[in-house]
Amino acid sequence: MTGATDSLIGAVDLGGTKILSVVVTASGEVAGEDLRPTNAEAGPDAVLGRIRDSLRAALSQAGANARLNALGVAAPGPIDFARGMVVEAPNLPGWRNVPVAARLGEMLGCPAILENDANAAAWGEFIAGAGRDARNLVYLTVSTGIGGGLVLDGTLYRGSDGAAGELGHIPLVDDGARCGCGARGCLEALASGTAIARQAAQAVADGRAPRLADLAAGGEITAEVVHQAARDGDTAARDIIDQAGRHLGSGLVAITNIFNPDLIVIGGGTAKIGPLLLDPALERLRAAALRPARDRVKVEPAALGDRAGALGVVALAREAAGRA
Amino acid sequence: MTGATDSLIGAVDLGGTKILSVVVTASGEVAGEDLRPTNAEAGPDAVLGRIRDSLRAALSQAGANARLNALGVAAPGPIDFARGMVVEAPNLPGWRNVPVAARLGEMLGCPAILENDANAAAWGEFIAGAGRDARNLVYLTVSTGIGGGLVLDGTLYRGSDGAAGELGHIPLVDDGARCGCGARGCLEALASGTAIARQAAQAVADGRAPRLADLAAGGEITAEVVHQAARDGDTAARDIIDQAGRHLGSGLVAITNIFNPDLIVIGGGTAKIGPLLLDPALERLRAAALRPARDRVKVEPAALGDRAGALGVVALAREAAGRA
Repeated sequence: MTGATDSLIGAVDLGGTKILSVVVTASGEVAGEDLRPTNAEAGPDAVLGRIRDSLRAALSQAGANARLNALGVAAPGPIDFARGMVVEAPNLPGWRNVPVAARLGEMLGCPAILENDANAAAWGEFIAGAGRDARNLVYLTVSTGIGGGLVLDGTLYRGSDGAAGELGHIPLVDDGARCGCGARGCLEALASGTAIARQAAQAVADGRAPRLADLAAGGEITAEVVHQAARDGDTAARDIIDQAGRHLGSGLVAITNIFNPDLIVIGGGTAKIGPLLLDPALERLRAAALRPARDRVKVEPAALGDRAGALGVVALAREAAGRA
Repeated sequence: MTGATDSLIGAVDLGGTKILSVVVTASGEVAGEDLRPTNAEAGPDAVLGRIRDSLRAALSQAGANARLNALGVAAPGPIDFARGMVVEAPNLPGWRNVPVAARLGEMLGCPAILENDANAAAWGEFIAGAGRDARNLVYLTVSTGIGGGLVLDGTLYRGSDGAAGELGHIPLVDDGARCGCGARGCLEALASGTAIARQAAQAVADGRAPRLADLAAGGEITAEVVHQAARDGDTAARDIIDQAGRHLGSGLVAITNIFNPDLIVIGGGTAKIGPLLLDPALERLRAAALRPARDRVKVEPAALGDRAGALGVVALAREAAGRA
C-alpha cells in the first residue's frame, strides 16, 4: 500500500439522510469507502464528528498509516464556495453558516474544499461518467427536491455567489402549486418526489386511488409507493407520474433552449422511476425545443449513480490542492 | 486620417427592417456610420449588396482611402457560428444557410465573422455598456421577439451549436398561448411586442378597449399603440402590459435562479415601454427568485441602445482578427 497512499484524496457527499465517504488514489482507484446515516437531527457538531469518523473508516481501508492529502466535501446548497461554508440547508436542521471546509480540514489535517452537491455530481459525470465526451453538460437531479449543475465550455459554472444551477426553480406554471422556496409553479413543485407524493396523498384522500391507498396502508405515501401503484395499474398514480413527467419535459425544453448542451444527465432517486416518468418528459422535449439544439441534445441517466458527487468533488479537491 | 485608418474594423447589425453599419478605429472611436432599410423582401443577394453599400458609405466617412482590416456581422439567429452562416431567419424571407461571413468578407476584402445579434449585443454591453463591472451578465432583448445573450465568467457562452441563449423560449405557462416557434406558453408568446399586440387586437375585437380602438383607427395595432392607450388610461391596454410584465418577471426569476448573474441587461424596442412593463416584472423577480441570487442581481436598461450589437461584434471581429 505504500506509494499508492502518497497522494490520497478524500471526498464526502453529505446528504440529509446519508454520509458517503470515499478515498481515492492518485490513479483514480477507490481505496476506501464508508456509508453511514447522517443522523442530521443531532446538529452540525455531531454530524461533522460523524463525517470525520466516516472518513477515517474509509482511510483505514487504504492502509495502516494512510493520510489524506486533500479533502473535498459535497453538501446541499446554498453554499458559499469562496468561504467553504454551508449557508443554509433545508434537509440539515440547524445548519446556518457552518464553516465545513475549515473545520473538517482541521480535523483531518489537510486542505479542504466545499462544493454544492449538484455541482459536484455534474463535474463527476463530466470527467468520469456519462459526459466524458461532452463539452456542455447540464446535470439535473430529481429527488425529494430538484437541483442542477452546469458544465459549460468544459468548466463548472457557479455564478456570482456559487448559487447558479437552481434548475428546480424555473417557474413553469403560472400561479401553480406552492414550492418549498415560497414561489409558485416551480419545476420542483411539479415534478420532484415530494410533488408526486403530495399529489398522491390528495388522490388517496379523495378516494381516487384505491391501489395506492392499499399500498400505503395508512403509512407515508412516497414517490416509490406511487411508482409501485402505477406499475400495479392504479390509473390515478399513473396520471400523477405522467403529468410530473410532462412538467419535467418542460424543464428539459428550457434547459435545451437556454444552454444548447451536448448532454443532459438525469440523476436522483425519483428519476429511478424510469420510463413512466422519463418517456413523457422526452416526448415533450422532442416536440417543443428549438432546432438545432433539440437535435443536438442527448438525455442520459447518471452513470456514476450515488457516487457522482463524491467522485466529482475528489477531482475538484485535487485541482484545488494542485493550485495551492 | 492616415494612421488612424490603419486598423479600422467594420461592423454590421442586420435586422429585419434596418441595416446599421459602423466603422471603428483601433482606439474605439466611431469613424463612420450608416443606417438604411433592409428591404428584406428583395432576398439575400440584394440584402448582401445593400450591406456592402452601407459599409462602404460608413467607410468613406473614415477617409478617402480607408479600408477595413476586419468585419463583424450580427444577424438574427439561429446562425452557424463556426461556418459564418445564417441558418434560418424568421424576419428575413428566403434566408436559409446563407454564408454571410464568406460572401461579405470577399466583397469587402477582409476577414469576416458572423455572430448572433443577441450574443453581439450582450458582448457589447459587457465590454462597453451597462455590464462593464459584471463578470456574469445576461442580456435580454424584448422586441417583436425575445432573445438573449450570455456572458458567463467573462466569456461569451454560445452552446454546442452557437444556439444557446434562447431565453424567449422558456416555457412559463403550461398549455399557454401558441408561440411562433410552434411550442406553447413561451416567454416570447407572453411578453414580446407581438404578444402584446396580439392580445390588444383581441381586446379591440371584443369591444373591451375603446381608447385602443380609437388610436388604432382600423390600422395595425402595435405594442407602441398599446402603450399609448395605456398612458391614456385604457384599462384593457394597461392590463395587457401589466400581465406581459409579470410574465417577463417569471423570465427574470428563471434567469436569476439558473445563472446567479451580477446583472440582467434589458434591451429591445418593446422594453422602451418602460415602468408599465418593467415594474411588474421587477416586483415578481423580487418576490419569487431565490436568495442569495435575488439579492445579487441588478436589472438595468441597455446602455448602448441600438448600437450594442454593432459595437459588440466590432470587439469580437477584432479578437478573431488578432487570433488569425
